[in-house]
Amino acid sequence: MSNLQVTARRCPIMGKALAVQSSRGLNAALAEAYGGARGYHAKVGRAKLHTSRPKEAQPVEFARLRSEPAPYPHAAKPAVTRTQEQQTRPPPAPKAAKFDYEGFYHNELDKKHKDKSYRYFNNINRLAKEFPRAHMSAKDERVTVWCSNDYLGMGRNPHVLKTMHETLDMYGAGAGGTRNISGHNQHAMGLEQTIAKLHSKEAALVFSSCYVANDATLATLGSKLPDCVILSDSMNHASMIQGIRHSGAKKVVFKHNDLADLEAKLASLPPGVPKIIAFESVYSMCGSIGPIEGICDLADKYGAITFLDEVHAVGMYGPQGAGVAEHLDYEAHAAGRPEGTVQDRVDIITGTLGKAYGCVGGYIAGSAKMVDTIRSLAPGFIFTTSLPPATMAGAKTAIEYQMAYQGDRRLQQLHTRAVKDALSAKDIPVIPNPSHIIPVLVGNAEVARQASDMLLNDHGIYVQAINYPTVPVGQERLRITPTPGHVREYRDHLVQALDSVWNQLGIQRTSERAAQGGFIGVGEAGKEEPEPLWTDKQLGLDEVLEEMQAGQGALGVLETVLENERKQVAQAVSAAA
Amino acid sequence: MSNLQVTARRCPIMGKALAVQSSRGLNAALAEAYGGARGYHAKVGRAKLHTSRPKEAQPVEFARLRSEPAPYPHAAKPAVTRTQEQQTRPPPAPKAAKFDYEGFYHNELDKKHKDKSYRYFNNINRLAKEFPRAHMSAKDERVTVWCSNDYLGMGRNPHVLKTMHETLDMYGAGAGGTRNISGHNQHAMGLEQTIAKLHSKEAALVFSSCYVANDATLATLGSKLPDCVILSDSMNHASMIQGIRHSGAKKVVFKHNDLADLEAKLASLPPGVPKIIAFESVYSMCGSIGPIEGICDLADKYGAITFLDEVHAVGMYGPQGAGVAEHLDYEAHAAGRPEGTVQDRVDIITGTLGKAYGCVGGYIAGSAKMVDTIRSLAPGFIFTTSLPPATMAGAKTAIEYQMAYQGDRRLQQLHTRAVKDALSAKDIPVIPNPSHIIPVLVGNAEVARQASDMLLNDHGIYVQAINYPTVPVGQERLRITPTPGHVREYRDHLVQALDSVWNQLGIQRTSERAAQGGFIGVGEAGKEEPEPLWTDKQLGLDEVLEEMQAGQGALGVLETVLENERKQVAQAVSAAA
Repeated sequence: MSNLQVTARRCPIMGKALAVQSSRGLNAALAEAYGGARGYHAKVGRAKLHTSRPKEAQPVEFARLRSEPAPYPHAAKPAVTRTQEQQTRPPPAPKAAKFDYEGFYHNELDKKHKDKSYRYFNNINRLAKEFPRAHMSAKDERVTVWCSNDYLGMGRNPHVLKTMHETLDMYGAGAGGTRNISGHNQHAMGLEQTIAKLHSKEAALVFSSCYVANDATLATLGSKLPDCVILSDSMNHASMIQGIRHSGAKKVVFKHNDLADLEAKLASLPPGVPKIIAFESVYSMCGSIGPIEGICDLADKYGAITFLDEVHAVGMYGPQGAGVAEHLDYEAHAAGRPEGTVQDRVDIITGTLGKAYGCVGGYIAGSAKMVDTIRSLAPGFIFTTSLPPATMAGAKTAIEYQMAYQGDRRLQQLHTRAVKDALSAKDIPVIPNPSHIIPVLVGNAEVARQASDMLLNDHGIYVQAINYPTVPVGQERLRITPTPGHVREYRDHLVQALDSVWNQLGIQRTSERAAQGGFIGVGEAGKEEPEPLWTDKQLGLDEVLEEMQAGQGALGVLETVLENERKQVAQAVSAAA
Repeated sequence: MSNLQVTARRCPIMGKALAVQSSRGLNAALAEAYGGARGYHAKVGRAKLHTSRPKEAQPVEFARLRSEPAPYPHAAKPAVTRTQEQQTRPPPAPKAAKFDYEGFYHNELDKKHKDKSYRYFNNINRLAKEFPRAHMSAKDERVTVWCSNDYLGMGRNPHVLKTMHETLDMYGAGAGGTRNISGHNQHAMGLEQTIAKLHSKEAALVFSSCYVANDATLATLGSKLPDCVILSDSMNHASMIQGIRHSGAKKVVFKHNDLADLEAKLASLPPGVPKIIAFESVYSMCGSIGPIEGICDLADKYGAITFLDEVHAVGMYGPQGAGVAEHLDYEAHAAGRPEGTVQDRVDIITGTLGKAYGCVGGYIAGSAKMVDTIRSLAPGFIFTTSLPPATMAGAKTAIEYQMAYQGDRRLQQLHTRAVKDALSAKDIPVIPNPSHIIPVLVGNAEVARQASDMLLNDHGIYVQAINYPTVPVGQERLRITPTPGHVREYRDHLVQALDSVWNQLGIQRTSERAAQGGFIGVGEAGKEEPEPLWTDKQLGLDEVLEEMQAGQGALGVLETVLENERKQVAQAVSAAA
């Protein structure tokens, strides 16, 4: 504050004018009072405002000026405003330097280039009829996609496509409005009922994406629940981190998957305060699995609610594909007894329609009142156009298909095991985990990108490099995601290509990591390999083993099962087409 | 803080333990030090932790406990954690009352019911082949939709649908990943190039929705630009309000469409500080139009950048359908000379693919470096699945169609005029504005909903009531949006139905409002009707008037033009099918 202003604030007249807080009024008043020579912004110069009035400050006038109704908004036209502007004689333009916006953008981009986090997108056109193949910018240039989140190939599932074609023809391309204004329809209702059924919850709500679902739901609950505290796993997805930030609620980060740390933090909070524990089932960049049951126990003990992101698990785990929470009580859910299961205990489940279900969109599922509250309060739900009818109908078909048929996700798991085994045999470092994610450790941003480029250009294999900030510096990786379509030829090609790239770039092998004591699970001595979430029994490997021991089968257990499953999937797809 | 803690903090040993800030450790330490009787939470009782060690506090132990590495995250399994939990003996559950989450939801919903802002969604299934008709939950129950934002009927445009069908067949249902990880393709690139061309900008970026585009862009710029101030029109859309809030930047609200107020606020800010002026071209609930040129002048003068939301204008205004900014220099853009136009001066334009373009999604357009910066930094763009190829291809076709053909938006404007005229003739109160929005004033939430229900149930007309918080209390309205498909029969039916509902519910007429001095432009004496943005000349009304004066035509100017346009649109649609 300038000396002038300090003095002015003490003045019985100027004090009032200053209290009005109208800067233009203030400038004018100061300019008038001081003959225009030394206003707040001296550069503004002599104000020409109200020159016909006495030279004394007129605080009342400023108050009146401010309380005048705005020109009627609906009738406001540039011409009208221009006239008004001319009457009030606006100040001349400031002469000081203006901010350099383009220079700022340039610097931001320069920083990204320098720290190697600048992203170059690859033009990948995934071909429905040649899954998992895609073409590049040239239509005849084929690559095999090994990093898509269309985990089950549902994006090309004939049932899904048929539903979408029919819905497009009958109901058109877009929803035409928000859910409240002409964008609510039988497709939204049907999809939400199906999602609620999938997770054995009372209700569900669909959003533009699960990014929006997480952001909007956490922001709404965190801001509305009085004094809410959100406990967040340290490896949570950006969408949850943003939702928590946007809520303005108190945030407590607990160590990744660490129940002891979570409990210490829960115990430190007053019992009566609302608490949300936000976490994931499958952490997508490392494939680790959240201790869902343990977190439910702690939530019960400390009066918290659980917010579980199953984005990378829906369609992929459980007898109906409802995710890891369902998978933990496989038999109960397979028998249609959801009561008292881990999934039943989770308060809010969020999921996506854009990964294993092959479409786009996201959702929450939970109690009817919770869902209705979010429906009624979350701006990110209320003020946005609904997903298109064809998208919602297609997603509903995808969920129903995966509820009824386990073949795709079993085959996906079998392919995952086969790739992990093959990479292990080649001494290529896979970060161990019990899920379907295959993170291959590189450990350097530049080298990871080179490896990815080399795979694409020399081997026709697309695996995106995952660099900071998605993973910590030094943990850069290639993230491989097999699908039911990644049959043996593709796998052999991938493993041979990775082996060659590893040689060419001199990337550390598992044994080299082991010689240095290991790193994030790779080559760590005495570390037992985590048991896969899909057990041998659930995948039918036990049965085949028995058959083999009885003298049947010649391919080895995994290959035999793979072959059987592959035939079944092919049958299912051709029957549907 | 309890007396005990105050004393403890002074203690040379406990002080250290407290500094560790581990509440569970703290509880245990206090329990041990004080024999378990009076810990921080007295209810925790005698801690059984470390009972074999001496009874003195062991701050070093707590520090060690906390600095122990977490169990390796990737291998963390419930079983492991459970064992660890048993070893450390967690505290018993607190006995105090837990927060009642379901009760909280119940109360929130109850508040919505009580203030009449609880929303009931109508099940409206818009039929592509019977546009603008829809069916309700029963497939044979038809209604006419009069409030969709599919302003031009592009959701059923044969070109758009053809593109979508072909893309679905070739590239499948979903994108399969984020833009960085397998979700970037020729459809995204093609769409962004088309959008950049539409707005004569260097680059564009597509988001899940324009809600996300506004939120992510304002949040990113506002948080990254040093000391940024965002000046926001008081009637801005929720998505911008959220983006500004999420940015954490300083927010200055200026009066709706008030250039004098905006300038006062700009003049009060230091010249070198980055400033964003965020506003809309068409304000969707009242139909007012932002003074774009005046705001560009002020931005230049005060070194601000302009952020213009053209969501309700793209496809609808301008020779190519780029929006109001383009419309202001109609001739220059029609002649392919965008340099130096108002649109050229706007720094950031945001738009939607989900309203006049009939699909779903949103975008920003601007300088290559600005777009690349948002692409590189905005979590809402980075961490979300791309729109499906078919959606992006369909939207591209819709934009190109509207760039090449003016018939739909001209007919839409003609229908808007015809409805406004007919309502005016019936003394039904339309809030005056120069755009395609027809806000019919009711002025009471309950009555607005009754009117909407009555239209639907008794007349087969769907117009959603717009209540608080979308509009201020007392300004509740029915928001009517004609399309090229709302031909004379539909219009006559609408006007007659509204007249009947107005009678039945005793809603104030324009003349009644006038008798009370008028309200928000309705029945205000001496208030000239704002001139429509699409002029008579641009709509070809002048020409027809001349023809009529020369003795041709029998229908009246508007009806004659309508008839001519209708024939052209029908020809264009059937040629495309």
